[in-house]
This record gives sequence, C-alpha cells and structure tokens, in this order.
Amino acid sequence: MGVTAVDLATLLGFLGAFGVVAAAIFFGGSALVFFNIPSILIVLGGTFLVVLMKFSMSQFFGAFKVATRAFIYKLEAPEDVIPQIIELSTIARKEGMLALEQAEVKNSFLKQGIDMLIDGTKPEVIKNLLMKDMQQTVDRHKWGAKVFSASGDVAPAMGMIGTLIGLVQMLSSMDDPKAIGPAMAVALLTTLYGAVFANMVALPIADKLGLRKVEEGRLKAICIDGVIGIAEGQNPRVLEPLLKTYLAPSRRDRDEGGGEAADAPQEQAA
Amino acid sequence: MGVTAVDLATLLGFLGAFGVVAAAIFFGGSALVFFNIPSILIVLGGTFLVVLMKFSMSQFFGAFKVATRAFIYKLEAPEDVIPQIIELSTIARKEGMLALEQAEVKNSFLKQGIDMLIDGTKPEVIKNLLMKDMQQTVDRHKWGAKVFSASGDVAPAMGMIGTLIGLVQMLSSMDDPKAIGPAMAVALLTTLYGAVFANMVALPIADKLGLRKVEEGRLKAICIDGVIGIAEGQNPRVLEPLLKTYLAPSRRDRDEGGGEAADAPQEQAA
Amino acid sequence: MGVTAVDLATLLGFLGAFGVVAAAIFFGGSALVFFNIPSILIVLGGTFLVVLMKFSMSQFFGAFKVATRAFIYKLEAPEDVIPQIIELSTIARKEGMLALEQAEVKNSFLKQGIDMLIDGTKPEVIKNLLMKDMQQTVDRHKWGAKVFSASGDVAPAMGMIGTLIGLVQMLSSMDDPKAIGPAMAVALLTTLYGAVFANMVALPIADKLGLRKVEEGRLKAICIDGVIGIAEGQNPRVLEPLLKTYLAPSRRDRDEGGGEAADAPQEQAA
Amino acid sequence: MGVTAVDLATLLGFLGAFGVVAAAIFFGGSALVFFNIPSILIVLGGTFLVVLMKFSMSQFFGAFKVATRAFIYKLEAPEDVIPQIIELSTIARKEGMLALEQAEVKNSFLKQGIDMLIDGTKPEVIKNLLMKDMQQTVDRHKWGAKVFSASGDVAPAMGMIGTLIGLVQMLSSMDDPKAIGPAMAVALLTTLYGAVFANMVALPIADKLGLRKVEEGRLKAICIDGVIGIAEGQNPRVLEPLLKTYLAPSRRDRDEGGGEAADAPQEQAA
Amino acid sequence: MGVTAVDLATLLGFLGAFGVVAAAIFFGGSALVFFNIPSILIVLGGTFLVVLMKFSMSQFFGAFKVATRAFIYKLEAPEDVIPQIIELSTIARKEGMLALEQAEVKNSFLKQGIDMLIDGTKPEVIKNLLMKDMQQTVDRHKWGAKVFSASGDVAPAMGMIGTLIGLVQMLSSMDDPKAIGPAMAVALLTTLYGAVFANMVALPIADKLGLRKVEEGRLKAICIDGVIGIAEGQNPRVLEPLLKTYLAPSRRDRDEGGGEAADAPQEQAA
Repeated sequence: MGVTAVDLATLLGFLGAFGVVAAAIFFGGSALVFFNIPSILIVLGGTFLVVLMKFSMSQFFGAFKVATRAFIYKLEAPEDVIPQIIELSTIARKEGMLALEQAEVKNSFLKQGIDMLIDGTKPEVIKNLLMKDMQQTVDRHKWGAKVFSASGDVAPAMGMIGTLIGLVQMLSSMDDPKAIGPAMAVALLTTLYGAVFANMVALPIADKLGLRKVEEGRLKAICIDGVIGIAEGQNPRVLEPLLKTYLAPSRRDRDEGGGEAADAPQEQAA
Repeated sequence: MGVTAVDLATLLGFLGAFGVVAAAIFFGGSALVFFNIPSILIVLGGTFLVVLMKFSMSQFFGAFKVATRAFIYKLEAPEDVIPQIIELSTIARKEGMLALEQAEVKNSFLKQGIDMLIDGTKPEVIKNLLMKDMQQTVDRHKWGAKVFSASGDVAPAMGMIGTLIGLVQMLSSMDDPKAIGPAMAVALLTTLYGAVFANMVALPIADKLGLRKVEEGRLKAICIDGVIGIAEGQNPRVLEPLLKTYLAPSRRDRDEGGGEAADAPQEQAA
Repeated sequence: MGVTAVDLATLLGFLGAFGVVAAAIFFGGSALVFFNIPSILIVLGGTFLVVLMKFSMSQFFGAFKVATRAFIYKLEAPEDVIPQIIELSTIARKEGMLALEQAEVKNSFLKQGIDMLIDGTKPEVIKNLLMKDMQQTVDRHKWGAKVFSASGDVAPAMGMIGTLIGLVQMLSSMDDPKAIGPAMAVALLTTLYGAVFANMVALPIADKLGLRKVEEGRLKAICIDGVIGIAEGQNPRVLEPLLKTYLAPSRRDRDEGGGEAADAPQEQAA
Repeated sequence: MGVTAVDLATLLGFLGAFGVVAAAIFFGGSALVFFNIPSILIVLGGTFLVVLMKFSMSQFFGAFKVATRAFIYKLEAPEDVIPQIIELSTIARKEGMLALEQAEVKNSFLKQGIDMLIDGTKPEVIKNLLMKDMQQTVDRHKWGAKVFSASGDVAPAMGMIGTLIGLVQMLSSMDDPKAIGPAMAVALLTTLYGAVFANMVALPIADKLGLRKVEEGRLKAICIDGVIGIAEGQNPRVLEPLLKTYLAPSRRDRDEGGGEAADAPQEQAA
Repeated sequence: MGVTAVDLATLLGFLGAFGVVAAAIFFGGSALVFFNIPSILIVLGGTFLVVLMKFSMSQFFGAFKVATRAFIYKLEAPEDVIPQIIELSTIARKEGMLALEQAEVKNSFLKQGIDMLIDGTKPEVIKNLLMKDMQQTVDRHKWGAKVFSASGDVAPAMGMIGTLIGLVQMLSSMDDPKAIGPAMAVALLTTLYGAVFANMVALPIADKLGLRKVEEGRLKAICIDGVIGIAEGQNPRVLEPLLKTYLAPSRRDRDEGGGEAADAPQEQAA
C-alpha cells in the first residue's frame, strides 16, 4: 500500500539551513540591508526565465509540480511488494496463471504485468514492454530533476550578472566615497542570492528528485523480475531471495508489521 | 501532420530575461555606460571568430540556421504518428504488405521504412538502415547545439580577456585617480557582456536544440519500432501499447481531437 | 579471517594535516581570531542541513556510521580467501558437492554461494543471484561515499555564503575604517572553514569509502569466480591462477603466514 | 581524389580573433605595455615545457606537425568515395572478385580492403583487421588534439603562476605607491597571455583536430561497410542507400560535378 | 629486449619549466621572499597528508616508487615483440605446439601465454586468464597515476587554505599599514606553491604515468592477440598485419636494426 509521507529530511534540512542563514543575518545587526527587491527580481526572475528558455512550457511548469515530491511523496515500499509477488507466484504455480485474475494487485505497474500474464502474452514480450515502460518513466522523471539542476547552474550566473551591473554603476559614478561601501553591499547581494538559491534550494531539490527516480526505478525492476519469474514458473523459494537482493541486508528478514519510522521507504535506496 | 509552431518557452524566456536585466540597468541610473561598442566587438566578434576556428564554415553558418529551430519548429507529434502506424499495421495484416502502397504516409522517415517493406526488403536490413539513418541524423543535429555550447564556453573567456586588457591599460597609466573608477567600469563591461551572452543566449539555445534532438530521435525510434512490428506481422493490439510506452502516461489514452496548447509536441519530451 | 584494523593512512593523514594547519595558525600569532562559533555554525550546520535535504534520513545518518569505516575496518584479505576456495574446490572434486557441508566457510558471502551449491542450485542461477547481491552491496555502500562527497561540494558554498553575508554587513555600515580589517577577517573565516572541512575531512573520507567499496567488490568477485569454478568442476590448478589474477603479482606467491603490516589487506586494492 | 585545401574557417577565425584583440589594445593607447618578453617566456615557454612532461618527445613534436592539419588538410570527400565503392560492387557482382584487380582504387584504406577481397580473405577477418586499423588510426590522431588541449589547460595555470610571482614581488617591496599600478599591470600580463593562448590558439586547434578525427573515422567506416557489402555480394542498390546514410540528406542526391565551396568536405561532419 | 631508458621529455620539461619559473623569480629582484619554510610545510606537507587519507599506506608509498617510471622506464618496444610472436607462430605451425618449449621468450607476459599453449590449455581459458591479468595490471598501475592526480587536486586547495590563514592573521591585526604589503606577499606564497606543485609536478607525473599504462596495456594486447592467433593455428602472414595494426603506419615496415632515438618505444603510444 503506497503511503503518502512527508520527507522529513528535505523539510528539516530546508527549514534548518534557512534558519542558520537567517540567524547569521540577524546576529550581525540590521537585517534590512539583506532585503532588496530589485536584486531578488534579477536573480530569481532571471533564473526562471533563462531556465524556461532551456525547456518546454510543460517541462518547466511540470517541474514545479514534481518538486513537491521532494517534500511529500507516495511510494510503495519494496518490502511490501515482494511478499505480494511471492504470493502471486505461489498461486500461479499451484492453480495456474488464470487464478491470478482473482488476486488483488495494488501496484499498477505490477498489475499491468500480471494482466499480460493472464492474457497469455509471451514472457519476452512482457519483459520488453515493461522494460521500455520503466525506461520511459525514468526518462520522464529525469526532466523534473534537470529543471532544478539547470536552475542551480543559472542562479549563480545571474547573481554574478547582477553584481557586475551594480559594480559598473557604482564605479562609473564614484562621486561620494562614503557611498561606495553601501553600493558595493547592494551589488554583492545578487551574488549572495544566487549562491543561496542554487545551493540551498535548487540543487538539493534536484538531488532529492534524482533519489526518487532511483527508488521508483528499483521498485519497477523488482516488479519486472517478479513477473518474469512467475511467467517462467520459478519456485517461490528461488524467487524470494532473488528479489530480496534489491533490499539492504538489514531489511531482508524483516517482518511486515514493524513500527517503521516515517522515512522507512527511503532506506532501501541507501 | 507536422505543425510549424512558435516555441513560447524560448521566446518568453528570452524577452523576459533581457527585460529583467534591462530593468536592472535603467533602474540604476544612466544606462549609457552599459553600452560600449569596442567592448561589444571584442566579446561578440571575438567569440564568433574563435568558435569559427573550432568548426567548419558550413557547421558554423548552419548553426545559425538551426538556431531558429529554438524559436520556431516543425515536428509531428508522436500521438499523431502512432495511430497512423497502427492503421498501417492493420492494413498489412489484413491485406498484405503490397496494400500499404495505397496508404498515404506523411512522415518521410516512416515512408522510407514502409517503402522498403513494400519492396520486400528483409526486416534486419530495414532496421539496420533506419537505425543508421537515425544515428546520423542525431549526429548531424548535435553540431548545431555544439556550436552554441562552444560559444557559451568562449564568451566568458573573451569577456575576461577584454577586462584584463582594460585593467592593464588602466593600471599602466594611473595618473588621475578620478579616472580609475570609470576606467574600471568599462573594463568590467566585457566580463558582463560575456556572462550575459553565454548564460542568457548561447547556452539556453544549445540546450533547447539538444531538446529538439531528443524529440526527433524519439519520433524516429517510434517509426523504427513500428515498421519492424509491421514487418514481423505483429498484432496491432500488441504493437499499440509498445509504441505508447514512448508517451507520458497522461497522453496515452488521449483522443486525437484535443485542443492542445501550442507547446504540446514538446511535452512528450518531458 | 576478517581482522578489525585501524586504517593508519586515514588516521595519520587526518591528525597530520590538522597538525600542520594548527601549526600555521599558532605560528602566526593569536590563534583565538580563528575560532568563531557563529562562523562554525553557518558552515558546518548549514552544510549538514543542506546535505540532509539531498538524501534520506537513513542515508544521512547511516553515512556517519559508515564513515567510521574510513578509520577502522574489517575485511578479509583476498590472499586468505583464495586458499580457502581452492581447498573447497579440491574437496568438491574428490568427495562431491555434499562434502562441502562439512567445511567451515567463514566469509558469509562465500558461504551463501557454497550453500546453494550444496542445495544443487544451477550455476547460472547462483551466478545471477550472487552478481545481483554484489551489485546491490556496492550500490548501497556507494551512498556513504556520496553523502561525504556532497558535503565536500556544499561546504565551500556555505563558506562563500557566510563570507558574502559578512561582507555585506561590513560594507553597509563602514563607519569606522579601523573596524574594516577585523570585520573582513571574520568574514573570511567561513571561507576558510568551508575549504578546510571540504578538503581535509569530507572529500578524503568520501575517497577512502570509495576505496573500501572497490576492495569489497573485488573480494566478492573472487568469491563468485570461485563458486562458479567449483560448480563447473574446474581443476583447482586452473582455478588458482585465475583467482590470483585479482592479486598484485608481488602477493601471488606469498605464504599465508607472513608478518603482514597493519595495512596489508589494502594493498590488493593498489 | 583527395584535395589539399586551406581550412578557411580556421584561418579567418584565427586572423580575425587576433585582429579584434589587437584593435582593443591599440584603441586603448600605448600598445607597448602589452609586450613583455619575460612574461611571454614564462607563459609560452612554461606551458610547452610542462606539456612536454605529459607526453613523449614524438607525441609532442608530432602534435605541431599535426597542427598544420587544422589549417591545411587533405581528405577525400565521402561523396566521391561512395560512387567508387558502388562501382566496385557492381564489378564484383558481374565479373567476380578477381575482376577488382583491374580497378583503380585511390583511397589507400579502401585499397587495402579490396586487396584482401581479391586474395580471398574471409569477410570476418577483413572486417576485424580494418576495424582495428580504423580504431588505431583514430587513437593515434587523438594524441595531436590531446597535446593542444593539454596546452589549453596548462597555459592559464602558467599565467596565474606568473601573476602570483609578480604580485609577491610587488607586495614585498611596496616603497613607491606610484609604482604599484604599472607593476600590477605587468603582473596581470601573464594571466592575459595565458587566457589568449589557451582560448584563441590551443583549444580551437584541439577542437579542429578533433573534427578531422571524426571526418577520417567516418570515411574509414564508409570504406569498411562498403568492403563488407562487396564481400557479402550485396546488391549495389541496397549498398548505396546504406552508405549514403553517412551523408547529410542534402548531399545524398548530389551529382559529382558540383562547384563545391572550399570547405565542402567538412560539411559531412556537420 | 626491454631497454631501460631515461624519459627525456619528462626530464627536459621538468628542468626547463622550473628553470623558467626560477628565472622569473631572480629576474624580478630579491628571490629570498619566495622562500618561506612554513608556507612550504603547509602546502607540501598538508597535500601529502590529505592525499594519504585518500589512499592506503601501500598505494601512497607505492606511488612514489611508480613515479620514478615517469622519468626512467623499461618497456619492450612492440616492434620487437611482434617479430618474435610471428617467429613463434611459424614454429608452432611447422613443428607443433610442443616445439615452442625450445624457444626463448623474453617478455614474461608472452611467456605465460606460450607456457599455457604448451600445456595444452584451451584457447578460451588462456584468453580469459590473460585478459584478466591485463585488466588487473592496468587497474594496479592506475593507482600510481591516481595518487598524483589527487595531489594535483589537493595542492591548490591547501595553497588557498594557507593564503586564507595568512589573510585572516593580517586583517585581524592591521596596526602598521606598511606591514600589509609584505604580509600579503607571504600569504600569497602558499597559493603560488600550490599552483606550482599541482601544475608543474603532480599533474604532469600523473599524465605521464597514464601514458605508461596505455603503452603497457597495448603491449599486453599484442601478446594476447598473438597467443590466441598461435593457438588457433593462424597463418603467420595473416597474423602479422593484424598485430601491426597496433603500430603507427610509419613503423609497420621498419627493419629491426634502425638507429632509434631514445624515446622510440613511446612513439607507438602516439
């Protein structure tokens, strides 16, 4: 059963890191100088507009929807899918493929494979089709991560462009030496914004989305191995250890009913 | 049916990003200091001339023609090609390969494959030939993106060279301390130009052209799978889901007559 | 026999490098200016929180446990495993597979393979299963190294963010010219901390963990080759040189009873 | 027929880029400050000596000979080789392999393959041998590009070393504040030289040599496919489109007698 | 016959590059300011200690032994090994495998293969074993290059750490404005040392060791192809051109008795 869970690591990391930076700013005196709307516009606006150029409308806006998956996600744990596959394999061996029609399969990707088994599709065809499907899914999920990793590349560049504009403006009209300091402070702000957005927002989200892609790919790989195992009439006792190689050793002998921590489904990616 | 469409993402991103930078310049006072013809010449001229060294005349000038495809493009949507392939496959199974001669095939790559089927060419030979063709097409399109990505590498270097020349000139004749500021402002301009051209023009165009390459590659991969499926006499009901694995799940069951947004053909790349 | 050993290279390198840096600090006068708690918090705290965003809770905390393996580790030397495999192979050829049940196999991965041999599992199935297991183990160990290498990427960025915050604060309130020097010194501290943590802690640990992964992968590869050799009834005299290709030439003819230096098991990774 | 041609792209780019930089220098006043023999020695001399360390004598000096190929080159156009292969294939089918002995084959690589056909060597052996030859040729040509790309890496580093030496000298004897400017100008010169040499000489030559390697590799691939096609007695009408997949579509139907521009042979690399 | 030879390229490059830098230092006045023991300690000592953390004791110290191979080396020239293989192949065809026992084989890797031929080992087994041996040798030699390339990465970082320490010390106690210049000169020294050590020592040695690895790999590949050719009873006239594809064309028809330059064995790597 897929569980919708908050990714505590992303949430705590995000709030904590911004908390630390905010503390450094407030600790140092006037925090107001760190807030400059034109600088925010040039860095954030410029970054998003440049990244938009690099992708399609739907990739770009899709990435923001996908980004929520860095914070909240829904993924069946491999530990829950494997026993289900073993059960299906036992049914198939005892009562034949057609008996699988009665079984309730929750994972839609696994269901797709089982349905083809019931229809009598050849194992090679099933494998070919499921593999392509897995590959395409992984490809598609890759784009969400790519939009954010492109933002992480562009943001420091936009920050530098903003700082250069500020420096040129300051240097070309250096009448009052007292104004140099504050003008340079403002010029540096865009570099700061670019570094903060890239390193504390865009790149971590890109990496977390990459992790989701790996988790989903592995879950689908387990389903493919399982369906092919059933199709070939493999003994459930041979199939089970094969599927469990996808799990960390500490999780292999685990009972289903454990009081798992919120981030349990992620651990298999470790 | 290939549709010529404006790539709104490239256009909006381009205009928006330059708008943001222009706003930052005008907001800060005199915009004239940001306009310096010798600096533009050294950065843009130098970049294009160095990039010309790296490629051939026809690759270089071809890249500018290809670059328009980042803004305006023409590509058949996979959703439109797949039903056509299924139709051809149904005809071939019912009435034989020769009946395909009557069918109207708009996509020229698909037509090439179907013509070989009608001629009775062996499936392996067809696959081999179409695969090589696809590979060569992708290779050729790669060069357009390469010219722009090389420009994105060279431009900041030319900007730095311009700034170094300016600094050496300023430092070697520092008679009037008041002239230092404006002289340094001018020296920094080439770095600014290089950063703007690389990050807001050259690299985004290179990335968008890379995206076009992926889209075209996938469309051709669908055609190859389709032609081979027809050649092997595969059941259209088996062929259809196989070809649809290339589409995002949300698009698989779509009716042809939808009111698609302008950037629809791109979404499959997502 | 797996030996728990201190990795002298990691330990000496770590203590020595910090000793050199500490000497440079104390040698230069007041060491107190180099100790600034807010700067430590923003660099170390910020780095760990941002890295936490990129991984899952269990990957993140697991990495610290795994990090101890950079200093202390337990790995059977391939030189000790190979004679054991040869012995098992001799038994299997002389007395049959079932005789292996009597043999004491200490390496748990090797034991898993031998147990399957005794159960009469087919060689292809054994190879497939052990290969997958090896791959998954390597994948899992990879994450520990990844957490530290991500820390090595993030720490300099957090150092730069800290320095930028300090510079903006200093520049925006430049009343007392005498305060500029010390304020800038403090601003630079975060860059220093970031460089020290990345280059002298995070990246070396990531690299050492990568080395452990290679060593473990090779030990498992030896076991797989050995088990398959036994399964195919290969002559121990053919099997031995094959397995010894995994060793450096200088170690191939070594007697088991040598007075090996503490870091002996590592040398094979050379 | 191989044609010796000047690569206009390299020549125009090279002269133009140096013209732009020279204009920027003369435009800014005294050009003499930009000419400093010790700085030239440390950057160019240092770069070549360090690069010499990285390669062998013959690789290093061979690279300079190869570098002329970035400006002047001799390569048969694939459009000229393909009809020749088709002709040979027609002869072989009509009159047998031995009739090929009469044919005049200009391309030496193609000749090598045809000679083996006449000798009755097995197709697999021919393919194996020609493939290895192609691979080795590509490998060898790679080194020329590598020497220049290494120079492009080392030159900026030598420029930085020169600037650091200049800065240390200036800072350690800052008696006359007026001398600081000119001293710093000289110190910056090595950085400028390093950037100019790397970005406007070494890297473009490395890239152009890489392009030559691709062109030569493709010509040899066409010859291999052609020889194997002849060996297998393939129909010239099947062989021709297969070989033409190596050409850009615009060139496939071209008549041999066109008035091609000087850089025509390069276009196929596009 | 392996010849021990001095690698003139490494030696001349090394002495020349340091000569150029030394000239730049002496030319600029007092050379003493460039010599600072604590700065040397922090850069060289720190670099070696950090690199030690990344490898094992034996890899680290082994790398220094291997590094001498960048200056002095011993490798049989492929041109000398190929005729020997052809001779062995002629003997084997005329007088049978057992006659090979009489032949004197100097190259120990080739001898290993020939010995297995005499023992009647199956070609597949020989190939498998020799390939693994070659792979493991290449892997092991890789580590020497890795230690130096890691040093090339770490040294500039240690240089920056040293400079940051110096800057913090200078800025935190800026009492005497006259002392700023010399203090900053000393602070910059570590950056200079790091750049010199990385670019003029560590990275060139790493690259030269990488070249040795390629040469040795090719020599072993020639031996494997030769032994397999003999095992399959290939005609020496077929075997010779196959093995000669590993040589540059200019060397293929060379007589053994040429007056080769000292660096001759390297040229084949070109």
